[in-house]
Amino acid sequence: MTEQALRLDEAELRGLLDGRWAHVREQARDVLRGELFAPVHGLSVEEHRARTLAQLEALAKSGLPTYGFPESVGGRGDVGASVVGFEMMVNDLSLMVKMGVQWGLFGGAISALGTERHHTEYLPDVMSLELPGCFAMTETGHGSDVQSLRTTATYDPGAEEFVVHTPDESARKDYIGNAARDGRMAVVFAQLNADGEEHGVHALMVPIRDGRGEPMPGVRIGDCGVKAGLNGVDNGRLEFDHVRVPRANLLNRYGDVAPDGTYSSPIESKNRRFFTMLGTLVRGRISVAGGSGTATKAALAIAVRYGDTRRQFGRPGTDGEPEREVRVLDYLAHQRKLLPALARTYALHFAQEELVTRLHDLSLSSEHDDRAQRELESRAAGLKAVATWHATRTIQMCREACGGAGYMAENRIPQLKADSDIFTTFEGDNTVLMQQLTKSLLTNFQDSFGDLDQLGLVRFMAGKVFETVIERTAAIPLIDRLVAAAPGRGEEAGLYNRGWQLELLEDREKHVVEGLAARLRRSGKDGNDAFETFNRAQDHVLTAGRAHMDRVVLEAFVAGIDRCGDTSTAKLLNRLCDLYVMSVVEEDRAWFLEHERLSTNRAKAVTQAVNDLCRGLRPYAVQLVDAFGLRDEWLSAPIALGAEHARQGDPAPGRG
Amino acid sequence: MTEQALRLDEAELRGLLDGRWAHVREQARDVLRGELFAPVHGLSVEEHRARTLAQLEALAKSGLPTYGFPESVGGRGDVGASVVGFEMMVNDLSLMVKMGVQWGLFGGAISALGTERHHTEYLPDVMSLELPGCFAMTETGHGSDVQSLRTTATYDPGAEEFVVHTPDESARKDYIGNAARDGRMAVVFAQLNADGEEHGVHALMVPIRDGRGEPMPGVRIGDCGVKAGLNGVDNGRLEFDHVRVPRANLLNRYGDVAPDGTYSSPIESKNRRFFTMLGTLVRGRISVAGGSGTATKAALAIAVRYGDTRRQFGRPGTDGEPEREVRVLDYLAHQRKLLPALARTYALHFAQEELVTRLHDLSLSSEHDDRAQRELESRAAGLKAVATWHATRTIQMCREACGGAGYMAENRIPQLKADSDIFTTFEGDNTVLMQQLTKSLLTNFQDSFGDLDQLGLVRFMAGKVFETVIERTAAIPLIDRLVAAAPGRGEEAGLYNRGWQLELLEDREKHVVEGLAARLRRSGKDGNDAFETFNRAQDHVLTAGRAHMDRVVLEAFVAGIDRCGDTSTAKLLNRLCDLYVMSVVEEDRAWFLEHERLSTNRAKAVTQAVNDLCRGLRPYAVQLVDAFGLRDEWLSAPIALGAEHARQGDPAPGRG
Repeated sequence: MTEQALRLDEAELRGLLDGRWAHVREQARDVLRGELFAPVHGLSVEEHRARTLAQLEALAKSGLPTYGFPESVGGRGDVGASVVGFEMMVNDLSLMVKMGVQWGLFGGAISALGTERHHTEYLPDVMSLELPGCFAMTETGHGSDVQSLRTTATYDPGAEEFVVHTPDESARKDYIGNAARDGRMAVVFAQLNADGEEHGVHALMVPIRDGRGEPMPGVRIGDCGVKAGLNGVDNGRLEFDHVRVPRANLLNRYGDVAPDGTYSSPIESKNRRFFTMLGTLVRGRISVAGGSGTATKAALAIAVRYGDTRRQFGRPGTDGEPEREVRVLDYLAHQRKLLPALARTYALHFAQEELVTRLHDLSLSSEHDDRAQRELESRAAGLKAVATWHATRTIQMCREACGGAGYMAENRIPQLKADSDIFTTFEGDNTVLMQQLTKSLLTNFQDSFGDLDQLGLVRFMAGKVFETVIERTAAIPLIDRLVAAAPGRGEEAGLYNRGWQLELLEDREKHVVEGLAARLRRSGKDGNDAFETFNRAQDHVLTAGRAHMDRVVLEAFVAGIDRCGDTSTAKLLNRLCDLYVMSVVEEDRAWFLEHERLSTNRAKAVTQAVNDLCRGLRPYAVQLVDAFGLRDEWLSAPIALGAEHARQGDPAPGRG
Repeated sequence: MTEQALRLDEAELRGLLDGRWAHVREQARDVLRGELFAPVHGLSVEEHRARTLAQLEALAKSGLPTYGFPESVGGRGDVGASVVGFEMMVNDLSLMVKMGVQWGLFGGAISALGTERHHTEYLPDVMSLELPGCFAMTETGHGSDVQSLRTTATYDPGAEEFVVHTPDESARKDYIGNAARDGRMAVVFAQLNADGEEHGVHALMVPIRDGRGEPMPGVRIGDCGVKAGLNGVDNGRLEFDHVRVPRANLLNRYGDVAPDGTYSSPIESKNRRFFTMLGTLVRGRISVAGGSGTATKAALAIAVRYGDTRRQFGRPGTDGEPEREVRVLDYLAHQRKLLPALARTYALHFAQEELVTRLHDLSLSSEHDDRAQRELESRAAGLKAVATWHATRTIQMCREACGGAGYMAENRIPQLKADSDIFTTFEGDNTVLMQQLTKSLLTNFQDSFGDLDQLGLVRFMAGKVFETVIERTAAIPLIDRLVAAAPGRGEEAGLYNRGWQLELLEDREKHVVEGLAARLRRSGKDGNDAFETFNRAQDHVLTAGRAHMDRVVLEAFVAGIDRCGDTSTAKLLNRLCDLYVMSVVEEDRAWFLEHERLSTNRAKAVTQAVNDLCRGLRPYAVQLVDAFGLRDEWLSAPIALGAEHARQGDPAPGRG
């Protein structure tokens, strides 16, 4: 890498990162100001809940929440904008999550699973927060396995009502946001029984509190109490004792019950119906991926600004005068803590933008494209998993990189860490999601997401001659060109040859997925127990998903840089992209060695490249985090806003 | 690995783990009972501080704190017991840390740096908690670099007093435990000036509050406020405005000032004196390593018990009846999250016991052994770093492995995570500690810990023909025998051949350390800037420390198993030890491939071995965590104490 200085065009970079929904980001920057939205710490649970609700009420008035709702009810029909709006709420992740519960999950379920009568009746009040609500899916006994939920909704044709019931503790709705304090209505997922038959999981509108805030008859509401973080969100538990709701309360887009109890659905297969219904809720998962990205950016912005001015030891051989002490970000070890994570954060940012664009465009498309929908769901599962794992790891590292200061609540990192910690679990446990992604890769999106169980999949594989087709996912002509120009598998290409890098990650993905397919096929043919077959390969399954995501994320990064209008800035982003690739390869270089994709010398050169790139990018680190456009008042950490800079006699960072 | 069932002798294993200071562990189990010591959550900061102080007062009456103090003042002169007592305080890590501040750091500094007059005057009140105190070392500007502290203590021969002063914000004492609320006295580390000369950092007794709890004249006390965790500890800031203390308040074991201002010390070199003084404080670091181990054990106990009964998905191909749902710990991915971490926790436990024994024996030895002391300090630095990193990573993983339940405060993991998070920073930043360890390896403990700066070290290396001598650290005859019996570097040995494993880790350490030495030597000869030379090799420096610790920890594990009196239990521990080694090798298998220590096939076999060992050990997982002997009331998590078991119809875990 050349060491020559590059000029970073800050406006260009900000514009590139803000992307298609820049106006929404600007709107959020404008709305989330002042005392009401300032990050706080040390509140009691009840104070924090009250504050979060007050923020939510102010948001309701800002118009931001209307983006995601149909124009027919006063919304703006802009799904992409709704996801981007959500991810900007980094001033307090409790607000982000409470917003997600009210408008994303609760409102989103009514939009996606209800029909016009539900839209008209409920959505205006959902948007205005007149009707605060819950998304009551997860139960104490089942969260990941939604198909096994145990709450029942039994149709009583005499009364033309559904009877919603919690048969046992396992069926209790658990961890439900908005339930403990504020929610008045819940979308309840339950096993539908009509006409004496089970029709699988459906959703119904169930009032849980009356106008005075008292629980409705037959509804028992519990409080989950203190959590590691997100204590501004009132998570609770719901139990139903034969609670009756009118027939019209069934969200009936994918399954309806006639007055006499006859069940009908546009989708015949019970299994496919279930996964179609779940699939419409994919936005929540994409939103969490985005939100975890912003939390990561905030932590990095704080740690990088601090590391840029914090000093500790003198340079050896000098007299130890304070002005000669080394800035901690000048240490290679410190750079290695923060800069590869920064590169990956950029990469994931572009992957997120790509995914939101797909979601948005698909929502506007007039014809239903089954395969595109399955790809979207798989990508959402994978990106949610890798983005939230990255957040957990990076924010943890930022805490350490800030030393004792990173442990002080006033410096925000503790709250970012504690709040985002559950992101790896909610909206789908990451380990489960990665397996769903891999299953889709194995079936090449031919079958619906999760539609095949392990046994089905093993049988499916057994009948196939399997070959992975690597389908490029972004900037396809450019990537085709880059790969075509790469010198091939040999050693000739420089490590920073983008075509070679792309091919390297494609090749790994193909090999890992095909190896897995062969393994399952062999085992399936031998008639082994499907569970054991799958279970013994579970680490392989997870590796396959990860390899796929590494490649997809790289493609998005390449596509993003291609949109950059300034040459010098693009050069810098290309170095950052090199750091992303080199750190991905370094982390998994054992695989590349085991499969003879890298020679031992070249593997060592990868480690050296990470070091070189860290050193080369270090001078730009502060500009690179500032380009995220997070307001100083959201960061709020004194160590990032001038306290340490003043002490060290450095110019203050930030932009007011 | 054979799959045959082994019988685990629970009493034998408990005895083995309890070790030399079993009676202290039993005493702690006996003392830490009932409502006063129960884990709590959701307290305000002030409530938590008050509760922690009340617990500390009860502890003071229990006699536990007297272990670490000299018999001359009513203590028991049992340093090992004091460390083991500290590490048992897992019922609330705030209590653990507050105990460490009062008796370990504050009392320990008076013991180690003071002379008889200080012992007699202060220690009885320190033990009884009549005199709550602070260890005021870290400053806002310098924590890791203690030599650069800026607080001054200037001797005034006219008044026969020291004037303690904080010249600027950078010199403010920061993060000081016991300062914000309870402390009355502080051991203050300051640059000593006497007779117009600087004598380096020394410690003095400085009263900070009067009998009514008001700050003493000239002392300004601040409050660090809310922290990520440990909010039962009142961390604060101290500033001194020309505060005068009598001459006798200098802790004068290593440096004294005569009435006329003449300075004298038994150690001539200022640098060596400084590092000798710091070295006497090594117990604090060893205690933190132990405490992080107990926090890790508690989190694993909760996650393993929960994973042993929690179910989610049905087995494929069955009808999905609840009783056929798979326990999550039966999934390979779940085993991989918890069981290698459990194996490493065992390994670190034995390494900790080994280290405490060394510390203890050295404290009793009549002659001073310089080299043994340096080795102890290096080992303490390394073990503190690897043990606390392991804690952070493992507790995080336990949170994820428990899903939403792991995010609920009632299930304890959130508090364990937040409290232990700072362990990687305090008592020495891990990254700094690992570098100190590696420096000692490079000088083969020939020079004092940290005594050489980077320039000195580069010069030192330049003059040497360097060869690492691997010195075995535990069960030496046994390990000599095992290594001698190993089939050598080839492929012939089974992966579970202990001699081969030992040699593999020894060989890696030797190669990494020698490679580093050669690199520094070359660069030093070329006359490169010492900082740049060191900085460019910083990742190599950290790798060397880690390779050393992996080997030392393995030796301790092997030695521990050798003490096991039951054959079947020992066999099981040997499997666990295999898992420790295989997961260490798996994590760094790129290195073994790059350096042709493993063939690609053998590297793949290592991954398979981890899987096999996980499956083989899974049936014993609950017994293995129960053997830690943590009281159920310390774990306190409903998910680990029967709530989930009752729901699933499984027998309740735990032992009352």
